[in-house]
Amino acid sequence: MSIPSKYPAKQHARNVVSHLKTKIKDLSNYAIFLSASTQESYKYSDAGKPFRQERYFYYLSGFNFPSGHIFYDINKDKLILFLPQIDYDDVMWSGFPINQEQALEKYDVDEVLYDDEIDSYLVKYDYNLTIDLELTNKKWRNFISRSKDLFYALDESRLIKDSYEIALMKKAAEITDNSHLAVMSALPIEKNEGHIHAEFIYHSLRQGSKHQSYDPICCSGPNCGVLHYVKNDEDLKERESILIDAGAEWENYSSDVTRCFPINGEWNKEHLVVYNIVKRMQTETISKIRDGVSWDELHLLAHKILIDEFLKIGLFNGNKDEIFESGVSTIFFPHGLGHLLGMDTHDVGGYPNYEDPDIKLRYLRLRRTLRKGMVVTDEPGVYFNPYLIELGLKNSNQAKFIVKSEIDKYLAVGGVRIEDDILVTEDGYENLTGITSDPDEISKIVKAGIAKGRDHFHNLL
Amino acid sequence: MSIPSKYPAKQHARNVVSHLKTKIKDLSNYAIFLSASTQESYKYSDAGKPFRQERYFYYLSGFNFPSGHIFYDINKDKLILFLPQIDYDDVMWSGFPINQEQALEKYDVDEVLYDDEIDSYLVKYDYNLTIDLELTNKKWRNFISRSKDLFYALDESRLIKDSYEIALMKKAAEITDNSHLAVMSALPIEKNEGHIHAEFIYHSLRQGSKHQSYDPICCSGPNCGVLHYVKNDEDLKERESILIDAGAEWENYSSDVTRCFPINGEWNKEHLVVYNIVKRMQTETISKIRDGVSWDELHLLAHKILIDEFLKIGLFNGNKDEIFESGVSTIFFPHGLGHLLGMDTHDVGGYPNYEDPDIKLRYLRLRRTLRKGMVVTDEPGVYFNPYLIELGLKNSNQAKFIVKSEIDKYLAVGGVRIEDDILVTEDGYENLTGITSDPDEISKIVKAGIAKGRDHFHNLL
Repeated sequence: MSIPSKYPAKQHARNVVSHLKTKIKDLSNYAIFLSASTQESYKYSDAGKPFRQERYFYYLSGFNFPSGHIFYDINKDKLILFLPQIDYDDVMWSGFPINQEQALEKYDVDEVLYDDEIDSYLVKYDYNLTIDLELTNKKWRNFISRSKDLFYALDESRLIKDSYEIALMKKAAEITDNSHLAVMSALPIEKNEGHIHAEFIYHSLRQGSKHQSYDPICCSGPNCGVLHYVKNDEDLKERESILIDAGAEWENYSSDVTRCFPINGEWNKEHLVVYNIVKRMQTETISKIRDGVSWDELHLLAHKILIDEFLKIGLFNGNKDEIFESGVSTIFFPHGLGHLLGMDTHDVGGYPNYEDPDIKLRYLRLRRTLRKGMVVTDEPGVYFNPYLIELGLKNSNQAKFIVKSEIDKYLAVGGVRIEDDILVTEDGYENLTGITSDPDEISKIVKAGIAKGRDHFHNLL
Repeated sequence: MSIPSKYPAKQHARNVVSHLKTKIKDLSNYAIFLSASTQESYKYSDAGKPFRQERYFYYLSGFNFPSGHIFYDINKDKLILFLPQIDYDDVMWSGFPINQEQALEKYDVDEVLYDDEIDSYLVKYDYNLTIDLELTNKKWRNFISRSKDLFYALDESRLIKDSYEIALMKKAAEITDNSHLAVMSALPIEKNEGHIHAEFIYHSLRQGSKHQSYDPICCSGPNCGVLHYVKNDEDLKERESILIDAGAEWENYSSDVTRCFPINGEWNKEHLVVYNIVKRMQTETISKIRDGVSWDELHLLAHKILIDEFLKIGLFNGNKDEIFESGVSTIFFPHGLGHLLGMDTHDVGGYPNYEDPDIKLRYLRLRRTLRKGMVVTDEPGVYFNPYLIELGLKNSNQAKFIVKSEIDKYLAVGGVRIEDDILVTEDGYENLTGITSDPDEISKIVKAGIAKGRDHFHNLL
């Protein structure tokens, strides 16, 4: 896949202004000013923290180094990148940083200056908008605190991905596909959850993805019931189920994919039953994705499918509607169906309501109508987490629906989640995730890896 | 290697007090109070930063989770660990944290309490010592600002490693040895600096080391002349030299090892010449390491060897003593011979003087006499960095000694550094690093990897 040459920072600035206009009518004497992350060290140490660019700044610059600034003159439609001064003491250690000429060539900006000229620019404007209030108070006097409006405009812009951003996300998704395939194929050499982690990181790095979108979750057996398990250090031993939730990053854009599989390639009965429930939850919700659809509704549909299936196999007992109203399905599917995906793994603009009186919607990170150009994860899950089950059994409104003796048979599975990254289109969707989630195909991949044996455990990527 | 069961936090507290007594005579009504790192998120994001425990806190607790506190009653010789309150909302996502009973079993402390009891402890003492002045001002009123003394006492304690710490560092060193060997053996599949990086990380992770001591430096050809090159993303192409500086971490203790080798297993003439100079610099300085020796002297010895060798092969021209005095050798060996190693890669207690008028000593991070129980890196290097060479040629005191036409022949090599981790003993040293630095052996390892070919590129660890 070929990605166009310049990150479209200028168009992003214009998009932000179009949203800003709905909040501030006359923007003629305004400018926008954002700052890059700085290179921090750990407390009481000279060790540098891993660098992660501030996402809003990147959105308006495409600049991925510490300590830059971006300035957008709304009236003149002029975007200026301010580079940090060259620290000559650092050149011996780190080499030369990018210079003005190279930066003008590389970035989609109208001018490149060094940061000693910032002051003279900022004093020209009555209103310099920034989201960084700390900076407002300390350095420059003529800022006004309209950060709420600026956040709004930035979030609404980032919400809808353009073709450049989608190309980056497809590249991240492709690296992630390959790395998940490598993990599934390498089970003969994976004796510990840490080996799964190693395998994923190795293949991501080999493909040029230096950062993961998030700390990978690699778990086996009952650990699969802990939603954000990141310890990744237990032996697989006699366990039969694996869950890996991991996604590579590409030029600050995320992927976020979960796959589950049986260690020996053969699904045991309970594992496959749970897998097929989650698979149905995902298939039916994905099939309904398109511009204009309510994400709340799809999330609640996933709960209804879970209830339907749990009644069929005897894990729940009672009236379908009463079960739905009781919220007992959140004991087994406690998180949201999915979230916005972009530069942040939980991308901006979802407006979750963590105090929603409806427990089923409380942890849903995306609470709005789907729009063309959004990228969302669709990631239903079913978990058998003893702590949550205990909470359900203590709740008299919920306990009556739970068939404890049947539930206990599934504790060894831990949990299943299937997660794909979905681009919303006008009349449907595009699934950015290519790695199979078909249980038969997964079984074949794992078995083929086992057959190849120890000598062939890596596909070179 | 078996590591004893408990991290010796109590003995560490006593060691700190023994040093504190040299600064504050009557400690009878004092207590020491330190806090763990917290789990931070990135700005404007819910993504968590990688967690790294604050090293002083770890030294007095062995506790490796966020938001704990440690309290040492000097008079009663009593060490108390305060756990953060359980956040029940988080249990569904992350599982249960360690509880009081488990913590008392696991850590070398006298009592384990939750942090809501801290206040009642702190008010008992006239003087609570802390290094965290921020905390002093905000939370608790009866602290006194003796942080300078406490830092001193903590640093002097951490300077001398006990047998438990040495065992951890040997484990880190062993993982690092295996990972360097894997890198050398995998050259047939390494077409990009990023592949070298991937290989090292993969083998560290497989051995249970989830964190690197520092961001690995993986470079090829002229990039080897940039001391802290961490871009690690260029194609190896026709380049012939590789330098990898990488070390795994084990339970917060570091290793730090550099190896260089030829891509095709055969040293070219210039590469081997430079390698042997650095090898001599390292061999002679290591051989002199023992309790009581001045590290400054060993560092200057390395410079003398460099000058001696550069004169022999015609890279320098002139009088040996005048060359030494001019500082021109810092153009080719700009950094220090080595630094203290421990929980921090550049460990505490070295008292560098970055304003030393002697340019040769300015970047030396350890400026004191070696003592039994210190761990230091011995890492001489010789670099051909165009920016530094240009500085030397512009300096009239130095330029006259540089034979530019000869120097130019070495630019393609970039640089060579050899780095081992050395424990200082009473009558000598113990080298914690086991991976060979013998050029013939390295050549054999690389060639054996090439012969094995693509199907056998990983040794399982």
